[in-house]
Amino acid sequence: MLQKVIPYAHQLLKEAIYSGDTVIDGTCGNGYDTLFLSNLVGESGTVYAIDIQQAAIENTTSLLKKHQISNTVLLLEDHQYIKRHIPEEASGTIGAAIFNLGYLPGSDKQTITTPESTISAIEAITEILRPGGVIAIVVYYGHKGGEIEKDALLNYAGSLDQKTFHVLKYEFINQKNDPPFLLAIEKRTQPKKTE
Amino acid sequence: MLQKVIPYAHQLLKEAIYSGDTVIDGTCGNGYDTLFLSNLVGESGTVYAIDIQQAAIENTTSLLKKHQISNTVLLLEDHQYIKRHIPEEASGTIGAAIFNLGYLPGSDKQTITTPESTISAIEAITEILRPGGVIAIVVYYGHKGGEIEKDALLNYAGSLDQKTFHVLKYEFINQKNDPPFLLAIEKRTQPKKTE
Repeated sequence: MLQKVIPYAHQLLKEAIYSGDTVIDGTCGNGYDTLFLSNLVGESGTVYAIDIQQAAIENTTSLLKKHQISNTVLLLEDHQYIKRHIPEEASGTIGAAIFNLGYLPGSDKQTITTPESTISAIEAITEILRPGGVIAIVVYYGHKGGEIEKDALLNYAGSLDQKTFHVLKYEFINQKNDPPFLLAIEKRTQPKKTE
Repeated sequence: MLQKVIPYAHQLLKEAIYSGDTVIDGTCGNGYDTLFLSNLVGESGTVYAIDIQQAAIENTTSLLKKHQISNTVLLLEDHQYIKRHIPEEASGTIGAAIFNLGYLPGSDKQTITTPESTISAIEAITEILRPGGVIAIVVYYGHKGGEIEKDALLNYAGSLDQKTFHVLKYEFINQKNDPPFLLAIEKRTQPKKTE
């Protein structure tokens, strides 16, 4: 009955996203979340899906083709530069974003997301997110380097101003083998003036 | 859109509890959760509501009377002894329990929940909870002694066997003044044989 981390992340995205929205997959990986977002925004929406690895872009392209998806823009790029690729007029209208940190599932694990780039990407998206919009970050940290990224991210997210953002950590605390947890950042619809 | 801690705890209780259930309010306080549970279980259900403070029992009695509630059993008792008061035949059928840790709202804060008693109470309820049942614990820890109870509880809950229980921590991590977080313990419907 308690929802697992990934279904819970997807539920938050479903609640935040409307048909016609512009949204972001910050780590497209094998494309499953890109496909999920694509269905949520519908034909009139757009998904910007970014990944630094050629293999990820190829796998995503092939998955989207199989499902005859045409509302996505795939970007072979470090996600810290995501904002360069989002049209100026979409600024402040982004409904949601998702990140899956760590390595490309099925890969040799040599390429991993890194703290500086991940935090830059998230920070950039907080700026162009609309009020009520959500960034869902699924934090895998069992791999080498994962703990460092996790700590840096918690430090960053934990310091976001509570007048402007809600930052939720959703985590199962009695599981072995470092399962992922969820960080969800919501831009408040009515920033609180005084606290 | 992200649910705050108390509404989220209530949502989990709503999902776990059916009409006719036997449930527990482990810290009845001023009675608001007792009333909430009473409505969820309906006339054919029973709420056992316990508190160590006379004032809490009085406030709860008065609130329930006002709402013409008759499906509750109020117990002036240390919650570590809760199991003594639950009929033998209800063992294994308890649908849910809630705890609000800390002090009685509106009181002089001299009486607080304590680690040993709280953990004994929760442990006792894990034994009589039905599969699929949930214990929701709202952890206030900003008061003197609160940190010690919080740490002991996280240590206890984090060590519950993942084959039998899911333990979720639901927490906003960018808020000042030590707001409460939620610990939710679910008894798995199908205990995992191997992990």
